[in-house]
Amino acid sequence: MPQITPQTKGVFVIAATPFAPDGALDMASIDRMIDFYRDAGADGVTILGVMGEAPKLTPEESLSVIRATLTRAGNMPVIVGVSAPGLAAIRDLGLRAMDMGAAGVMVAPPGSLRTNEQIIGYYGHVVEALGPDVPLCLQDFPLVTGVTISPATLGAIFEAHPSVVMLKHEDWPGLSKITTLRKAEAAGRRRVSILCGNGGMFLPEEIRRGADGAMTGFAYPEMMVQVCRLSAAGDHDRAQDVFDAYLPLVRYEQQQGVGLAARKYTLARRGIIASDTQRKPGQALSSEAVAELDFLIRRQERRLAELG
Amino acid sequence: MPQITPQTKGVFVIAATPFAPDGALDMASIDRMIDFYRDAGADGVTILGVMGEAPKLTPEESLSVIRATLTRAGNMPVIVGVSAPGLAAIRDLGLRAMDMGAAGVMVAPPGSLRTNEQIIGYYGHVVEALGPDVPLCLQDFPLVTGVTISPATLGAIFEAHPSVVMLKHEDWPGLSKITTLRKAEAAGRRRVSILCGNGGMFLPEEIRRGADGAMTGFAYPEMMVQVCRLSAAGDHDRAQDVFDAYLPLVRYEQQQGVGLAARKYTLARRGIIASDTQRKPGQALSSEAVAELDFLIRRQERRLAELG
Amino acid sequence: MPQITPQTKGVFVIAATPFAPDGALDMASIDRMIDFYRDAGADGVTILGVMGEAPKLTPEESLSVIRATLTRAGNMPVIVGVSAPGLAAIRDLGLRAMDMGAAGVMVAPPGSLRTNEQIIGYYGHVVEALGPDVPLCLQDFPLVTGVTISPATLGAIFEAHPSVVMLKHEDWPGLSKITTLRKAEAAGRRRVSILCGNGGMFLPEEIRRGADGAMTGFAYPEMMVQVCRLSAAGDHDRAQDVFDAYLPLVRYEQQQGVGLAARKYTLARRGIIASDTQRKPGQALSSEAVAELDFLIRRQERRLAELG
Amino acid sequence: MPQITPQTKGVFVIAATPFAPDGALDMASIDRMIDFYRDAGADGVTILGVMGEAPKLTPEESLSVIRATLTRAGNMPVIVGVSAPGLAAIRDLGLRAMDMGAAGVMVAPPGSLRTNEQIIGYYGHVVEALGPDVPLCLQDFPLVTGVTISPATLGAIFEAHPSVVMLKHEDWPGLSKITTLRKAEAAGRRRVSILCGNGGMFLPEEIRRGADGAMTGFAYPEMMVQVCRLSAAGDHDRAQDVFDAYLPLVRYEQQQGVGLAARKYTLARRGIIASDTQRKPGQALSSEAVAELDFLIRRQERRLAELG
Repeated sequence: MPQITPQTKGVFVIAATPFAPDGALDMASIDRMIDFYRDAGADGVTILGVMGEAPKLTPEESLSVIRATLTRAGNMPVIVGVSAPGLAAIRDLGLRAMDMGAAGVMVAPPGSLRTNEQIIGYYGHVVEALGPDVPLCLQDFPLVTGVTISPATLGAIFEAHPSVVMLKHEDWPGLSKITTLRKAEAAGRRRVSILCGNGGMFLPEEIRRGADGAMTGFAYPEMMVQVCRLSAAGDHDRAQDVFDAYLPLVRYEQQQGVGLAARKYTLARRGIIASDTQRKPGQALSSEAVAELDFLIRRQERRLAELG
Repeated sequence: MPQITPQTKGVFVIAATPFAPDGALDMASIDRMIDFYRDAGADGVTILGVMGEAPKLTPEESLSVIRATLTRAGNMPVIVGVSAPGLAAIRDLGLRAMDMGAAGVMVAPPGSLRTNEQIIGYYGHVVEALGPDVPLCLQDFPLVTGVTISPATLGAIFEAHPSVVMLKHEDWPGLSKITTLRKAEAAGRRRVSILCGNGGMFLPEEIRRGADGAMTGFAYPEMMVQVCRLSAAGDHDRAQDVFDAYLPLVRYEQQQGVGLAARKYTLARRGIIASDTQRKPGQALSSEAVAELDFLIRRQERRLAELG
Repeated sequence: MPQITPQTKGVFVIAATPFAPDGALDMASIDRMIDFYRDAGADGVTILGVMGEAPKLTPEESLSVIRATLTRAGNMPVIVGVSAPGLAAIRDLGLRAMDMGAAGVMVAPPGSLRTNEQIIGYYGHVVEALGPDVPLCLQDFPLVTGVTISPATLGAIFEAHPSVVMLKHEDWPGLSKITTLRKAEAAGRRRVSILCGNGGMFLPEEIRRGADGAMTGFAYPEMMVQVCRLSAAGDHDRAQDVFDAYLPLVRYEQQQGVGLAARKYTLARRGIIASDTQRKPGQALSSEAVAELDFLIRRQERRLAELG
Repeated sequence: MPQITPQTKGVFVIAATPFAPDGALDMASIDRMIDFYRDAGADGVTILGVMGEAPKLTPEESLSVIRATLTRAGNMPVIVGVSAPGLAAIRDLGLRAMDMGAAGVMVAPPGSLRTNEQIIGYYGHVVEALGPDVPLCLQDFPLVTGVTISPATLGAIFEAHPSVVMLKHEDWPGLSKITTLRKAEAAGRRRVSILCGNGGMFLPEEIRRGADGAMTGFAYPEMMVQVCRLSAAGDHDRAQDVFDAYLPLVRYEQQQGVGLAARKYTLARRGIIASDTQRKPGQALSSEAVAELDFLIRRQERRLAELG
């Protein structure tokens, strides 16, 4: 089974959790979604992220989602979010996911952490709980977690724990953090894979600053794939052209809460998942929001046609 | 099986979760601890509170603790904390606990809630998830949850949901909140049981303001029992005498983090639990803290002897 | 002197505070900047906003900036930010600004407020301190203030205090809030002017939801003016074309902290202010950021040329 | 004029700001209060603290309070709180206070700081703004500021800036922080004076951990003076006897918000200030609170009489 490493590159799509209109897990949509992500050129998939609907699942349902995703994904690597209020649950879910074939696990810091020392200590406990052989992706998302992690703090964690192989970077503003981290590597620190979140809002700049790709759930993963490929080929103007064509929608989807509703609406509109149902507490799209999305999608299609 | 109601009064002790030195659950200590609480005059017990070590248990271990506690407690009511990041886990654990014979469940608000409307909406979802027949205790602990709940917000929840029968009051400063809530009841709103936390730091005042008792984990529950009884009998001076004798230690134990270590140390020193082990991440008592505790306990014993 | 009213519409530009390279206030640049904003079609100007560098001024310097701006602005209305930790300073600066001819004052809530009742109480104190005749703009910016204000809370403030004539809306996501507020007005509540901030990131949608215009500091105010005019004329596709052409830069400038540096850099590059100097603690633009900005500005100019 | 140094010891009382019933500054009460503090054995006074009513003063009023206090205090050192949202105001007020004869200034961190690096950077800016000759007291009060400062962060600040001569310690729980700081000094770091706040709730333990005294506003400063003297003499049992006699009231006064009302009420009851008036927004004492205070004060007097 493939595992994430410090050299991992590309686009890992944050997968939505599809529900039927009655709220039950929709396993057929999981299959269709995974196929779609692979066909769109994704290099991997991440499930059970904190911003998704992972906390709305029972422990048994979480295992079902992991199993179904891994089965369908085959040799496409799958990262499993295992953030939880306590280490026992992180260890429990993390080890089960790895046993089932996950490529690695992702852990965001609990909101109670404040100082550099507390954050470093926490990841020490996480690595100890999971053991040194579980590849770990550290999710750095201050806007949601409330925890700000300085570059030096990340560096201390990377140096202490070789199993932390990846950073999910969604600090905001966060471009200078990528530059700082890559400079520290140029000066001798071991390499870490950096995949960027934040809905893709700064993807072209992030790649030029040294990021290895994207890890976010934008409903058009083909944009992220193209931007990464064009950037890798040095064609920054063309990469930005593609990015700009999608940007009005990227911006709309990045709104917290309503963005998840917009994403599920768009995935359902594209025929990828059967229903845009969210479990409670979920935010339904208003008629105004639907009109805004439809307007933006129509314009996006027109502009993409012009781009050729 | 007894259930909590709007008329519930007395002392519900927040039970520690006892671990063996190797970190395993110590079931024998659970039994001894429950016996001790009953013998001390406690009217009930609360387990798996957010401030305890509940998040350090796997889902299976939580069920073991619930089962063992309920078995030993017999007809003494047991409230089970079921706070979780998502409704599915709250429903899942809550219904299982009730099936096993719990007296009710306790839910604290997640830290992301801000406005009155969000808080009211959240408890609506919780009641919907648990069903209208599960007696619910609302834990109001802003210092830890980060969520401030105004008296009017509590009132709106109480009016909308008859199954919310109890308030675990640990707002700070919070004396005026008790007065406000009781005045609203005097003006016609239905009664809710109010048991107070915060380590017992304001117990005499809370009782005089109209609280029905205490729900906290102070290692000398006999203090809370006596203060409640003396206050109920109108002997406020004697109640305060007893309270004052314990206050230096109450104050020490109320420190967040180190307080739990102090509490477990004291319970172990008293022979109630076998070990003061905490699971990681836990805060060990320094030699300075042990000396401070021993000094305070010695003085407390002397003063209690003087009180007669 | 013009004052803001519930009917105020259009674009109020949040003015930067220009400093000379040695950190002194640059009064000549204030004049040039005000002229530029007027020539760009702005309907008004807002100075001393919390996100600007107002706290870096001494009380005397704040008065100098107010005086210079009002003198140059002539009959163009100027709103003065007077947020402060205490009511005495708000009253003091607010009354002086009004005496000098300000169109109104703007106050954001202090970060300590939590419940609806606390927020409503706070604005009651502010209105009492300023007196009922000072037109007040309420700044609703949770990402920076940490205070979330529900639509019902805003409604209660609007109903209690006729002098609150304007909302600076920068809740995020915040489109549904505009809809909710306008629906309440349709149902009978008095009108309030709504001008939107957040760097202009959602300006087309905000206008269609019922906002009256923009109040933000984007370095190309002509974009906001055009989007507002085209939207008012019902030409939403053309409005979105203009918006989309600027969006990559809007997005870049909206980054907190580095965005102010980008904004000052762009204003200086355009010859509007003499220097992009910030007072400490300020964030300098890295060479990477300068390259990113230059790249985006070049592309923006090309695209605007294509739009005609 | 005396200045604070790394060797400063004793009790610095946080002075209340006395107002007449009409809200005007009450200068006669300032004089009486300063005389009372000196007579009670205080070693110094601190004015304009963030928890007092400093933000309710205009800049001119702040200067009046500083002038009046310094005049009356004579050779008793006075520390002036100069925390403000911006460096210009800190510099402005700080230098004026020093010119008038202050013993030093006190600065708490703004709530926006998160990482160790941000906190260290902030105090670098503060020292640069004030110049290297202004003795600085760093106020470490996470419960109010929202900023947690690790011992290593404090150490980095102390090492970089010799003018930071004092720590106002009111982290909670914070006993281990004192131990850690003193151990670092034993290992070679330069000494810093540590005076403790938090209403005095842990004064005996703080002194034994190595603190140099107290800096808080408890309405019976004679308690703090006695506890410090008895502890210095090694009579910890007697120190704790005195402390315990006052503890029920210390606990009551330490409640945020209502505590300031209780403190002013007690100072007025003792005849030290003429009125317990607070400026808006202030919290009036309810009749229940007055009864609680009177009850506690009566019992305290009885117990002190018993102690002899």
